[in-house]
Amino acid sequence: MADPQQMEAAVHEYVAAFEAGDADRIGALYAEHATVEDPVGSPLKNGRTEILEFYRSSVATGAKLKLEGPVRVVADYAVFPFSVNLHWEGSDKRIDVIDTFRFDADGKVTEMRAFWGPANMHGFS
Amino acid sequence: MADPQQMEAAVHEYVAAFEAGDADRIGALYAEHATVEDPVGSPLKNGRTEILEFYRSSVATGAKLKLEGPVRVVADYAVFPFSVNLHWEGSDKRIDVIDTFRFDADGKVTEMRAFWGPANMHGFS
Repeated sequence: MADPQQMEAAVHEYVAAFEAGDADRIGALYAEHATVEDPVGSPLKNGRTEILEFYRSSVATGAKLKLEGPVRVVADYAVFPFSVNLHWEGSDKRIDVIDTFRFDADGKVTEMRAFWGPANMHGFS
Repeated sequence: MADPQQMEAAVHEYVAAFEAGDADRIGALYAEHATVEDPVGSPLKNGRTEILEFYRSSVATGAKLKLEGPVRVVADYAVFPFSVNLHWEGSDKRIDVIDTFRFDADGKVTEMRAFWGPANMHGFS
């Protein structure tokens, strides 16, 4: 199982990589055959290539992440509340999200699920 | 699918039922064959009887819940950050938790998972 400190560090690296606008740094956190479900209920991104493409689009929006509470770490999971903040079409937007990261034994994320819905979007008209 | 407002209301009822120390009110939020995994990685509580037994022990500790951010609602899930606060063996304790509630079409919780680990426990010696 991944080390708890390593799992928590991955979350902070995720936030820092968005701050730097560096999709490759984000992709490096994932295992080769990982899946990303963002938001939950949408089609999965399967594997490193699709995941990288997804994050290239994400960082291109200029979105920054802000942790909104402590990272919860248990078993092979790190789970954390955060906000996505972006300036888009002339106004500030915020989305309140909780992500679950599941890790493999090498400390790579194998499954990411992002929980946010319409009621969590603020500043969108 | 359960209604988003109904799912969010269930979370507030969960917090209120802890405040009232009423395990039956908590149990009433669950479907007959629901599962509870608290914390994630521990054996499942299966079905209403085991779940009620679990919550009777929980409320007996005097634990109160405090929401620590907005409820994220998407698809058939409500996911929320909160703290568990209790006075025990002469001092105040806090555990930082994120729960995922998955709902059936009737708006009952069918699967609950609680994410918290040793690093999320404060005031325990």
